[in-house]
Amino acid sequence: MTFIKTPVRGMPEQTPGEMELRNYVMNQIRTVYRSYGYLQIETPAIEHIENLTGDQGGENEKLIFRILKRGESLEKAMARNEAICAEGLRYDLTVPLVRFYANNMSDLPLPFKVMQMGPVWRADRPQRGRYRQFIQCDIDILGEPSLLAEIELISATTEALASLGFEDLEVKVNDRRVLRAMALYAGFPEEELPDIFILLDKMDRLGFTGLRDELLSAGYSQDSTDKYLGLFKELPSNTLSSEYFANYPDIMSDPEIFRNLDIILSASQQLTDPEVKVIFDPTLVRGMGYYTGTIFEISLPGMAGSVAGGGRYDQMIEKFVNQPVAACGFSIGFERIIVLLEEQGLIPAFTDPRSAYLLDKDLEPDRIVKIMEDAARRRVNGETIFVGGRRRNIRRQKEELEGLGYTQIDEVFPD
Amino acid sequence: MTFIKTPVRGMPEQTPGEMELRNYVMNQIRTVYRSYGYLQIETPAIEHIENLTGDQGGENEKLIFRILKRGESLEKAMARNEAICAEGLRYDLTVPLVRFYANNMSDLPLPFKVMQMGPVWRADRPQRGRYRQFIQCDIDILGEPSLLAEIELISATTEALASLGFEDLEVKVNDRRVLRAMALYAGFPEEELPDIFILLDKMDRLGFTGLRDELLSAGYSQDSTDKYLGLFKELPSNTLSSEYFANYPDIMSDPEIFRNLDIILSASQQLTDPEVKVIFDPTLVRGMGYYTGTIFEISLPGMAGSVAGGGRYDQMIEKFVNQPVAACGFSIGFERIIVLLEEQGLIPAFTDPRSAYLLDKDLEPDRIVKIMEDAARRRVNGETIFVGGRRRNIRRQKEELEGLGYTQIDEVFPD
Repeated sequence: MTFIKTPVRGMPEQTPGEMELRNYVMNQIRTVYRSYGYLQIETPAIEHIENLTGDQGGENEKLIFRILKRGESLEKAMARNEAICAEGLRYDLTVPLVRFYANNMSDLPLPFKVMQMGPVWRADRPQRGRYRQFIQCDIDILGEPSLLAEIELISATTEALASLGFEDLEVKVNDRRVLRAMALYAGFPEEELPDIFILLDKMDRLGFTGLRDELLSAGYSQDSTDKYLGLFKELPSNTLSSEYFANYPDIMSDPEIFRNLDIILSASQQLTDPEVKVIFDPTLVRGMGYYTGTIFEISLPGMAGSVAGGGRYDQMIEKFVNQPVAACGFSIGFERIIVLLEEQGLIPAFTDPRSAYLLDKDLEPDRIVKIMEDAARRRVNGETIFVGGRRRNIRRQKEELEGLGYTQIDEVFPD
Repeated sequence: MTFIKTPVRGMPEQTPGEMELRNYVMNQIRTVYRSYGYLQIETPAIEHIENLTGDQGGENEKLIFRILKRGESLEKAMARNEAICAEGLRYDLTVPLVRFYANNMSDLPLPFKVMQMGPVWRADRPQRGRYRQFIQCDIDILGEPSLLAEIELISATTEALASLGFEDLEVKVNDRRVLRAMALYAGFPEEELPDIFILLDKMDRLGFTGLRDELLSAGYSQDSTDKYLGLFKELPSNTLSSEYFANYPDIMSDPEIFRNLDIILSASQQLTDPEVKVIFDPTLVRGMGYYTGTIFEISLPGMAGSVAGGGRYDQMIEKFVNQPVAACGFSIGFERIIVLLEEQGLIPAFTDPRSAYLLDKDLEPDRIVKIMEDAARRRVNGETIFVGGRRRNIRRQKEELEGLGYTQIDEVFPD
């Protein structure tokens, strides 16, 4: 019989220690989000291929695990040379959320504050610490057009991360419309903006001069490039956006955007712990094309990449439900958090009292029952009590149990 | 753009109320199993097709969701007319457990007491309340050959179910070897036993005379059929197996099996709550072919079907790791439990205090911050505080929030 011991390529297995940590992290996050009134939902792993390939998913659409049709539908599809896959595994929780909302809208409160935690799948090139199945952990507010959404998402997510022990969090905030106004001010043509933003998004890797080189070698004019880069001189700072652009009335042609952004910035700063820094970051891009307004990200000083990211995507749901529904969300990079907790030594000691009884194989049934009764009584008091057969290699067995946190180990022999 | 609002056929969506219940049930079960020292693991949803089709899964192997190869491997497979799927979604947690154990054996304690809770997928015909994705909730003890395993699995699972409020649980216990001895005693040929057991398994639906008719019409002799059915006269009872077969020395030719079974029966009865009934049930079959010894099931009086089932499968792991590893497991029918909790009115009231602030759209930023600060302070005390925009249809909004358990709702207007 063919049998393969290792997991499928790029797929993770969680050992008991890892599961303990993951359960703890999920519980902490869920507890914080629940206290804000977020309602948890779950959508199936399998989605219609039509929904997954509707161009909302960007690059992720290339990474879909597709599911083969079965039985008659497969035969029919083969015979007619039609698509042999009608379904795929979800690559994020946003597409399924939008479908869920469209399907259940009339039964849901408005605004709908929703939380999701679950696995998603992407057939990405596996790397150390990056798997093809991973947990996403999102909160979204649907139907709240005001900046109450942004302010709350930022403080709730910052609080969730702080509850895990992360300190000195840095919240970066920007607005897609500010990004656009800056690029247009520099003289880049409207249709080039997506490409410009892809380059700008690499600023933290490229650096200032690297970005300059990239823009020039991509064929943009010296003039526009200089004008554009001149706008990024004084960052990062905690300036408000209206102060940052005080000398650029052209960029601030719609002052409402900047007023809004500044309220979000200062309210978030006031609402988070004093050591949290909330800053306006005009280089912040966020990859997904569906963002329409505010975008934000949380990072840890000295750590590359972000631990959470999100923003406003007011036009996405309308495409599916034929009525405008404001939307804003924040997603915690769950797997990244797990790695960082380990790296930063923030894993709590799970120290519930643990005791073990190791029973000799010849122990009388009555004694077995007595010991199990005793174990049951002790479990009621919150203790973990292990009852098992005593192995011949008792030294090894004791070491294993000690490694699992068992401090008291009793061997039991027949009278 | 094509967009499909409903979930993929047969796939479940969990609404906030359902998720609250599911989280509660998982927590209760996990808490009990943890207190016995079960270690939680998680395996990926996607498994090697070779492992899924190794004949361990019985009928489930026909229900696999297969995943299409991608890119070059797909092209190659098509060109060479080879299999276009190398992976599938797991249909249970036992196959992945065995793979996990084979892959990690040297790092795992012996015995390995393990708990798993996670979704599995089967392309079964969808029915009311039966979905193609559902949670399984298993505990297994690997490497414990003695009846300590059976006794503990039965009391732990009974306790987990009792912690959810289920009363009058009925634990039925049998042994595959007893089933075999009975059928051979009746004169059925060895090779017919699997078919006989498939019929016996339907006893609760067929009834005594229905089973008789089925056996006869399947061509078995009147003599064997009568002899066989004569063995099932006095059930269900709480007799021990050795008492039940006291007049049948031929059936009890290996008395060790019956001694073992009786210790399990009486120890389990002593260890569970007095209103739990532990009975020897010689009609209990359990579908899966991999069981080798004790089998057990928990049911609720008056409810068709079981809420948990399991048994000993000592020979399965050896096929994969090339050394004998004793194994015994118990699986709770998670989705069935959820339905029964609802039917029996056992859903606890989730009554944490909940308050809401509904802010007028013209509220000054300073007031917004003040209210959010106040909300944050109250959340620390364990309250759930919802802050959101005040809708024009305030009556509807209040009704929605009251429906979600918000008892205090304050509207806030500008000064």
